[in-house]
Amino acid sequence: MTVESRSDANGPSGVHDPRRLAWAYLSKVVQGPCPALSRLVEEVGPQEAARAVRERDLSEVLGERTVARAHVDTAAEDLELVAGMGGRLVTPDDDEWPQWRLLGFGNLSRSRDEGPPLALWVLGSRPVAELTDRAISIVGTRAASGYGEHVTAEIAGDLAVDGWTIVSGAAFGVDGAAHRAALGVGGLTVAVLACGVDRAYPAGHARLLRQIAQNGAVVSEYAPGTTPAKHRFLARNRLVASLSDGVVVVEAGWRSGARNTVSWARKLGRPVMAVPGPVTSASSTGCNRMIREGEARLVANAGDVVEEAGPIGLRDGPEVVRDLDALSGDALLVYEALPAAGPRGVRELSELSGVAVEHVRAVLPLLEMEGFVGCDDTGWSRQR
Amino acid sequence: MTVESRSDANGPSGVHDPRRLAWAYLSKVVQGPCPALSRLVEEVGPQEAARAVRERDLSEVLGERTVARAHVDTAAEDLELVAGMGGRLVTPDDDEWPQWRLLGFGNLSRSRDEGPPLALWVLGSRPVAELTDRAISIVGTRAASGYGEHVTAEIAGDLAVDGWTIVSGAAFGVDGAAHRAALGVGGLTVAVLACGVDRAYPAGHARLLRQIAQNGAVVSEYAPGTTPAKHRFLARNRLVASLSDGVVVVEAGWRSGARNTVSWARKLGRPVMAVPGPVTSASSTGCNRMIREGEARLVANAGDVVEEAGPIGLRDGPEVVRDLDALSGDALLVYEALPAAGPRGVRELSELSGVAVEHVRAVLPLLEMEGFVGCDDTGWSRQR
Repeated sequence: MTVESRSDANGPSGVHDPRRLAWAYLSKVVQGPCPALSRLVEEVGPQEAARAVRERDLSEVLGERTVARAHVDTAAEDLELVAGMGGRLVTPDDDEWPQWRLLGFGNLSRSRDEGPPLALWVLGSRPVAELTDRAISIVGTRAASGYGEHVTAEIAGDLAVDGWTIVSGAAFGVDGAAHRAALGVGGLTVAVLACGVDRAYPAGHARLLRQIAQNGAVVSEYAPGTTPAKHRFLARNRLVASLSDGVVVVEAGWRSGARNTVSWARKLGRPVMAVPGPVTSASSTGCNRMIREGEARLVANAGDVVEEAGPIGLRDGPEVVRDLDALSGDALLVYEALPAAGPRGVRELSELSGVAVEHVRAVLPLLEMEGFVGCDDTGWSRQR
Repeated sequence: MTVESRSDANGPSGVHDPRRLAWAYLSKVVQGPCPALSRLVEEVGPQEAARAVRERDLSEVLGERTVARAHVDTAAEDLELVAGMGGRLVTPDDDEWPQWRLLGFGNLSRSRDEGPPLALWVLGSRPVAELTDRAISIVGTRAASGYGEHVTAEIAGDLAVDGWTIVSGAAFGVDGAAHRAALGVGGLTVAVLACGVDRAYPAGHARLLRQIAQNGAVVSEYAPGTTPAKHRFLARNRLVASLSDGVVVVEAGWRSGARNTVSWARKLGRPVMAVPGPVTSASSTGCNRMIREGEARLVANAGDVVEEAGPIGLRDGPEVVRDLDALSGDALLVYEALPAAGPRGVRELSELSGVAVEHVRAVLPLLEMEGFVGCDDTGWSRQR
């Protein structure tokens, strides 16, 4: 294997860019999160990774994970199909890759489903990183009550007016009400799907999905043609959680999928909020329970949500305090590996800190975001 | 002043027992909590305290507090009136005095309104200590919604069936629904009034109050004839909180009196619980807010309430663990003043421990309840 230059990413970004074709091929092959493949791509680049997959030149784990579809290469057709719908494939090569939204995955176990997305298929014209810069996820039961629909509309509408992007899963009930409320006030909204972006799921939301693409984005880590499936909904929920500053559950029954999204939010360090409801309403059982157990903070309106999600939303504001004591783990090791003055490259920092390259890559944008480090053509350096 | 023998309490307990007449006189004079008077009575007994009040032989604080009504002595008439209604005056002399329910006051500041009650006027045949041994207070807005009335009835009814006494303030709305639900299932209930027990307040609850007296107790620290007043409602709320194992707020608006009861419960170390409601309902604003702010734990049913209040309810059960490390402050000093074997009297313990007599009296029942000490005719001693 040889290491590809990352500067390939600055080449042509059209449908037939070989690097992008490689990303598209890999996305189709793994169908969902695959931390091992993400690491391989980090190490050797997407083209070399694609070659290794095609030629079965892989570790056992990665071999098993890719064997079923290694022979399927519809990359060019997939890219063309999505481009025809006004969409594109967004990868870590792109400026709009929501890098810092995916940092939390570095803390998760390395199990099959807990990794960051390899790449994102996107319908919509706005950059994903920009769309998700200040975002709140609002989720809940498909069987929303009138109360649930009403409160969802109030909270989502008020947040969208206030400039927050509303992220949800495009399902019936609370999800749909959240997207619609954002659209209704001319706000931004992102739908994350558990199938290819060429599929309208649920079919009854086909028109809604078109509107979302026009006023925000429809996003999926699954290649075009992928059908929805149980495990994909669960994986999708982790993206709903990760692409926002916090998750609000408006209504959820005892065994609602929303609790899975909440579980991801907790793993990823996102604030979890829930709207209470009558203790006599089955649709509020899950929310009331999560509040009771301390899994979610009670919120009654958009103001409460902003109060909870605010500190991250305000991260670029004047109130950010640089506190070295707040650093730990890899972030602290990487920071300390930087000299007092002068830049260092990612691989150099990996060697100096003893932190794996992919982790160094993950923590640097976080450190930058918090004002500890800066980056220019020469590399990364400490900020005063 | 001379120290009266406490054995007076073993004398006649009828209307014309001079010691009881003194308690009744003092209760009428101070109209509500008066820590300074409680301390004086602890020191010199009620008769000597009554003499001192009548003859203005008092400290400045106590002089001011009692001057307005020192000349009013309706003790005999008050005792006769209440006896005629099937009631009585319960004092610290009596076995039914809910001593341990009032211990929490020892931790409060010594301000005018924060003391224990001097004595309690009671209608109803059951001993107060027994009635309040396993008790839950349920309070809330007078303007309860249908939802609030329904949930109150469910929770209070289920708790009462389970053997818990329902304590409340006999007001319209949540209070009334709580009392009624307990009566409806043949359970026990206690109404604490902000006026004399001879007054039916609110008048619309006259029949309800009679039923409560027949199936539990109507209780007040105010002598007969005392009319309800703002400050008496606030003082009454502290008794509602103290006479139970925990306070449940079912519905409360933003500025509900229930929040005052909650504030007392927190000061007195009682668990505070609140039932959530629709965020669109003004009657649930206070409850939702208290849950959000961490002032109250969300409860949805009687099971949740018992889970929260249970550890105190189970205090006599087999699960009580004696842990010396749990003792602190006066309790620890008093315990350590006891010899390994053999009894000591209260004054002796006060001298040995350096803890004031009234505090020694307050902590001993607590220590007994927790199994650290025992008491017989010869005095208090350590338990193995």
